[in-house]
Amino acid sequence: MESRQGMSLKEYLEAKKGMVDEALDRFLPEESGISPEIFKSARYSVFAGGKRIRPILCMAAAETLGQDGAITLPVACALEMIHTYSLIHDDLPAMDDDDYRRGMPTNHKVFGEDIAILAGDALLTEAFHLMSGSNVTIGISPERLLRIMHEISEAAGFFGKIGGQVIDLKSEGRDVTMETLHHIHTLKTEALITVSIRAGAIIAGADEDELRKLSIFGSKIGLAFQIADDILDIEGDQEILGKDTGSDREKKKVTFPALIGIESSKEKATSLIEEALTALASFDERAEPLRMIAKFIVERKS
Amino acid sequence: MESRQGMSLKEYLEAKKGMVDEALDRFLPEESGISPEIFKSARYSVFAGGKRIRPILCMAAAETLGQDGAITLPVACALEMIHTYSLIHDDLPAMDDDDYRRGMPTNHKVFGEDIAILAGDALLTEAFHLMSGSNVTIGISPERLLRIMHEISEAAGFFGKIGGQVIDLKSEGRDVTMETLHHIHTLKTEALITVSIRAGAIIAGADEDELRKLSIFGSKIGLAFQIADDILDIEGDQEILGKDTGSDREKKKVTFPALIGIESSKEKATSLIEEALTALASFDERAEPLRMIAKFIVERKS
Repeated sequence: MESRQGMSLKEYLEAKKGMVDEALDRFLPEESGISPEIFKSARYSVFAGGKRIRPILCMAAAETLGQDGAITLPVACALEMIHTYSLIHDDLPAMDDDDYRRGMPTNHKVFGEDIAILAGDALLTEAFHLMSGSNVTIGISPERLLRIMHEISEAAGFFGKIGGQVIDLKSEGRDVTMETLHHIHTLKTEALITVSIRAGAIIAGADEDELRKLSIFGSKIGLAFQIADDILDIEGDQEILGKDTGSDREKKKVTFPALIGIESSKEKATSLIEEALTALASFDERAEPLRMIAKFIVERKS
Repeated sequence: MESRQGMSLKEYLEAKKGMVDEALDRFLPEESGISPEIFKSARYSVFAGGKRIRPILCMAAAETLGQDGAITLPVACALEMIHTYSLIHDDLPAMDDDDYRRGMPTNHKVFGEDIAILAGDALLTEAFHLMSGSNVTIGISPERLLRIMHEISEAAGFFGKIGGQVIDLKSEGRDVTMETLHHIHTLKTEALITVSIRAGAIIAGADEDELRKLSIFGSKIGLAFQIADDILDIEGDQEILGKDTGSDREKKKVTFPALIGIESSKEKATSLIEEALTALASFDERAEPLRMIAKFIVERKS
């Protein structure tokens, strides 16, 4: 896949990931006189090899509307901090009780449960600290920044990620309908992916019609992303994934492959990507990175 | 103690607590189609009998500068949500491992650790959701609201409450100097109390000199509040407190009474309140509620 600049998707993702990593390193400095352990713990998970999908989508959405993606970095990195905090807390013994993530011991395995809980709390808090202080650096209006923070906190909270995690926890080991499964994915995964795209678009001054189309795009690729994750859990290469495959089945987690089979799940993911691309039809070639990322989501190996 | 309206402190606190409780009930509605358990859990701790010191200070600070305290309610309630989330997480088995708070079983004892962690996460997230959506309802400029959110997230995060909790956890059972203890209190308690006052003052349009004086007031009463808490843990009436006394000593928590004795601790608290009142000397009678609350902090029985 090549974008209009002749950059392959791989080069695009690597370039953007480099920008995000550099910015996160700046926003979460290693040295601190106050309780260095909490910084170590937070940085351990932030730099544990994430693909930076959410911040890259935020930048790509801004670029789609002609804005320099780098301008979104404080918001993009805040999204990654929120994503990381939720992984740290989800891995805790009282939650999914995972020992490994991306081939590395989970946060509480290295730093203890107390520090892992606090590192998650601190990353969530720092996300809002970073955003609320960035209206000058980003150069967007305070009204728009408040709107973005409002949307992000909604996608992360009671009616988003956290609500989805509760339903997911309560569903383990039970018979779950397709409707409930869809609902869990919408809240747990789609919401934050969609808002990542919306945030970048709002920073770039998107109008309501553009936002509506990008939201459809976001919700389609968000669901496809989750289905692809479920498929990887069954078919993926353990070494590339850095975690045990088959863990969903072991935990009796409800997934798309478990409900409709692996072939139908693949078809579903492919058709979601097609619908996502249709939603972007009216955008010009500056939306090429978003389009490439959409295709990448179902083709990735980890 | 009587304020200029002839209202006793008791009446003032009750009236304000009623306003905060009513607003929290509105901001955290009981009914929800999505995962009702997480709302129940969050509401359980939010309505577990807190004194609402932080929101009341926020309102009283606004009143000190001639603003209607009720206008601050979204920010005041957000401060209470942040305070409550930190209590839920601090009580967890991996942290302070407390079974009771204010005479009631702690959140994880009732709802399980998983839901307790998520309820804390959700309250922290909702605090920022509430604030970021309130610039219209509060009628303050978006710039000021962003400043308030930036200060609150700082006081709650790595360099505030969470940083203090980490140092506190690492100090249990160890010899701790007065300097370290002071540092823990500054981060864990003073920071959020001071920012509660600053937030109300910023909403009311305080100038930098007024903010500076109110910050001194906040840090003095914040430390006095913590010392009074430590004294209550030793001398308090178990029934009024709703928890076991002596729990600090049992957990080998470092406290002012443990370091300098109970009499010196009382003298320290009293002199801090005097210093706090001195910082308010240039304010008129509208600061009377703040002055009364300062005195109440060292005289309270629970």
